[in-house]
Amino acid sequence: MKQVMILAFLSLAISATAQQPIVKEKWHWDQPLKQDTLAGYVQVVKVDNVLYISGAVARDVTPEGIAQVYKALEYSLTSNGATFQNVVKENLYTTDIEAMKKYNEVRKAFYKGDYPAATWVQITRLYMSDAKLEVELIAHLPR
Amino acid sequence: MKQVMILAFLSLAISATAQQPIVKEKWHWDQPLKQDTLAGYVQVVKVDNVLYISGAVARDVTPEGIAQVYKALEYSLTSNGATFQNVVKENLYTTDIEAMKKYNEVRKAFYKGDYPAATWVQITRLYMSDAKLEVELIAHLPR
Amino acid sequence: MKQVMILAFLSLAISATAQQPIVKEKWHWDQPLKQDTLAGYVQVVKVDNVLYISGAVARDVTPEGIAQVYKALEYSLTSNGATFQNVVKENLYTTDIEAMKKYNEVRKAFYKGDYPAATWVQITRLYMSDAKLEVELIAHLPR
Repeated sequence: MKQVMILAFLSLAISATAQQPIVKEKWHWDQPLKQDTLAGYVQVVKVDNVLYISGAVARDVTPEGIAQVYKALEYSLTSNGATFQNVVKENLYTTDIEAMKKYNEVRKAFYKGDYPAATWVQITRLYMSDAKLEVELIAHLPR
Repeated sequence: MKQVMILAFLSLAISATAQQPIVKEKWHWDQPLKQDTLAGYVQVVKVDNVLYISGAVARDVTPEGIAQVYKALEYSLTSNGATFQNVVKENLYTTDIEAMKKYNEVRKAFYKGDYPAATWVQITRLYMSDAKLEVELIAHLPR
Repeated sequence: MKQVMILAFLSLAISATAQQPIVKEKWHWDQPLKQDTLAGYVQVVKVDNVLYISGAVARDVTPEGIAQVYKALEYSLTSNGATFQNVVKENLYTTDIEAMKKYNEVRKAFYKGDYPAATWVQITRLYMSDAKLEVELIAHLPR
């Protein structure tokens, strides 16, 4: 308890020093709001020359589901002045890696032979209870 | 075996070329050491104008547990000249996404309506055997 | 369906605006190709002064397996003008965190007392069906 109070005090003391906001550009499917205020996230945050892109999802790890995910990512990229050429890192989360490997050609077509660093892991579930695939990206724009 | 020896030789040869260290600023709860030498990690690494923030954890995915995680992150941010406004990416790992969704308002209050790109996944366990929630962040400072 | 067509149209319209490619340097074990065109990924992408390093893997979470992962990462780093001193973020995925904690000294030796921000999670499986450990890194080079 004492610790918590000291921590709270220190927090206030440090917060009192001037902190400068950064310039972020947000992009979301729902243009006017530019973020999902219900779940509390943004599809794309642009800061400096970097795009942080939230996971795009699909309900099935099928050619259709995979295409849906990468089309959503493609749209997230092109809407922010980038293409898959700009992608430097991919993190793929799925409940079924075997299916993802089976239909990887669908994913690979989007990269047009120019691949990023990538890590794939199989997890137990995603945000939506029926989602089975989620892919997030980091992309760099020219400086 | 041969491969390993060639690899070891190449490693040495390449290591021999001058490599320049980067300037990192570390921050950890335990001020004097500035890192956890037992587990081998640092709570916050500042490099260039970026803060890489290790996962903060809680034992329960309850309003109290979630508040504990985000207070720890808030402290990690403010101690390094940032606030949640500086957060551009959130990765949330939990053993119970349903509970996290149920109490998301507690998390959202910390962002004050200004959300980052975010990906949530449900995993089977975390570093501490009894932890159920871990959240890591990337924050940018003004250049 | 209508939505999809509108989306396709907007995509084309946005794609029509000039997009500038970024300069990426790729590094892969298989030097001539500089990427794995079968799985569709690159071991290391260098962009600006950042190295995005794909997960290195091992079949067993034993001292030998852990050493194998970190030797592969060390080689990925030194081949790109960096060392573990340049690592700012580590994400470790394993099917057995308890074993990883047991043999953490093997991992720690590679960092030589200079640790990064790190998050470890236990997942159900990795890309290769028999892999049990995968570690990915972000490293910064001097600007």
